[in-house]
Amino acid sequence: MSFDRLIAKIIETGNPTVVGLDPKLDYVPDFIKEKAFEEKGRDLKGAANALWHFNKALIDAVCDIVPAVKPQAAYYEMYGWHGVKTLYKTIEYAKEKGMFVIVDGKRNDIGATMEAYTNAYLGSTAVDGKTFEGFGADALTVNGYLGTDGIAPLTAVCKENDKGIFVLVKTSNKSSGELQDRKLDDGKTIYETMGDMCESWGADTIGKYGYSAVGAVVGATYPEQLAEMRAKLPHTFFLVPGYGAQGGGAEGVAKAFDEKGLGAIVNSSRAVMCAYQKEGCDPKDFAGAARRECIRMREDITSFVTALKK
Amino acid sequence: MSFDRLIAKIIETGNPTVVGLDPKLDYVPDFIKEKAFEEKGRDLKGAANALWHFNKALIDAVCDIVPAVKPQAAYYEMYGWHGVKTLYKTIEYAKEKGMFVIVDGKRNDIGATMEAYTNAYLGSTAVDGKTFEGFGADALTVNGYLGTDGIAPLTAVCKENDKGIFVLVKTSNKSSGELQDRKLDDGKTIYETMGDMCESWGADTIGKYGYSAVGAVVGATYPEQLAEMRAKLPHTFFLVPGYGAQGGGAEGVAKAFDEKGLGAIVNSSRAVMCAYQKEGCDPKDFAGAARRECIRMREDITSFVTALKK
Repeated sequence: MSFDRLIAKIIETGNPTVVGLDPKLDYVPDFIKEKAFEEKGRDLKGAANALWHFNKALIDAVCDIVPAVKPQAAYYEMYGWHGVKTLYKTIEYAKEKGMFVIVDGKRNDIGATMEAYTNAYLGSTAVDGKTFEGFGADALTVNGYLGTDGIAPLTAVCKENDKGIFVLVKTSNKSSGELQDRKLDDGKTIYETMGDMCESWGADTIGKYGYSAVGAVVGATYPEQLAEMRAKLPHTFFLVPGYGAQGGGAEGVAKAFDEKGLGAIVNSSRAVMCAYQKEGCDPKDFAGAARRECIRMREDITSFVTALKK
Repeated sequence: MSFDRLIAKIIETGNPTVVGLDPKLDYVPDFIKEKAFEEKGRDLKGAANALWHFNKALIDAVCDIVPAVKPQAAYYEMYGWHGVKTLYKTIEYAKEKGMFVIVDGKRNDIGATMEAYTNAYLGSTAVDGKTFEGFGADALTVNGYLGTDGIAPLTAVCKENDKGIFVLVKTSNKSSGELQDRKLDDGKTIYETMGDMCESWGADTIGKYGYSAVGAVVGATYPEQLAEMRAKLPHTFFLVPGYGAQGGGAEGVAKAFDEKGLGAIVNSSRAVMCAYQKEGCDPKDFAGAARRECIRMREDITSFVTALKK
């Protein structure tokens, strides 16, 4: 139940990080793009094929040292349904390789419709008496603006199927404070209020490491809030975006963890996918460069989160 | 620019309503399902094929009397990428038939990722020097929890491409008040604050009818807030869900409109898609029943929004 499977993998690998798979076509080395276009065409179908080959090689390169991947739905949807097919194949392949898969879709809706999203990403859909997984992910990011109705269908499936969700609490972007930092009439900020809602939504799904199935997204770019939220939300597991390319450093990120070195997973997308560009190595070695960046990131973060270091 | 195209179609049809295409497989008559399963299989692919035939017949039945359709992404995503392909085909077909297409996806993310969603739904994606539309919709629903960064990429494309967005302000579900009705320290509620942000985000996209490209979702189930928001947000066009099946009546819904009968479009999904069940007619006449329900709804709403009545 809850994030126990993810936490067990983090302990096993000694690595509290997740590779974000947000594959812009510009990130894909030319030799992969050309081959993919020749196979499927110089269009959305060919582009989606290029993303698939890129993702597959990245997963192969890091699956033994990184516990999880986080495909960002937007970067697949921009290639239309062909892109969404690549999202499906990426999830399927990462799971085959033993990785925990978090779909970053920030989905949200009223209860009946949220059931449909739940079926799509974490549960299954019935067709003529049989059930099929639409995407079959392990966790999904969601937006809690609609309140409990929009969360309850997810927590029900998380309990049954050993899956989890991450609710947006304090996001990593510059303008996140415009709404999230505003103070309510009880003196609490909106993000604190959303954090409290996460603790409450997750209350009856607490697993063996002390964390519930309802996690929170808290950006690495706001280390003070990370520390504050870690102290206030003892059962809420954090997904921390914004490390690296967006500006969050390891020392700040370390504030998201508890004294056992648990309680959070830190995402890096561009720095891993584009490591070959930064390194200046042969683009054919892009997957090797991604692996080296994952090791560097693991060492950087565990140098502050020492309880987890193997 | 802005919602001018939609408003022109509303005036032309004398009908301020939109048909929500949220096609659960249970809503699809057996004769369509059986044929679709025989063609493509008793699985997600066959189910997606059934939804496609159902949607196509509904669009054919109402496209001359209803200005717009609103496919809800969740009900396609639950059938995996096959379902998303049906979403694409549905959008394409409704546009061919002259309808304005609002994708109800409630998307939200930080700026760079929101650009990807913008490309996916309202703009286009470049592949090898050519551009392609991922989904090619006319408008998209979005969630503003992340602030301006997450909205700016959309408004840029709305200005260039004559498209629009609807930001969640006050949603139609029971628990919408848990966060949205909370008061900030300046005495305003969160939904009022989000409404003010809509006016501000839309300020330089105001079209010839006085409405901007940044609309708001305000539920029919809260008529008092509809009236309040209509008065306070003079340039914000409303998408009003919750009429009919969710409990909102025409008299309440009428509060969303200005004195010219403009300023809002009211959604109905289940009551239209399942009209044949409620009527008890031959399921083969499901599309005819949907048309009759659309006419009933138009008459019901324009009996209160008399300025628009033809």
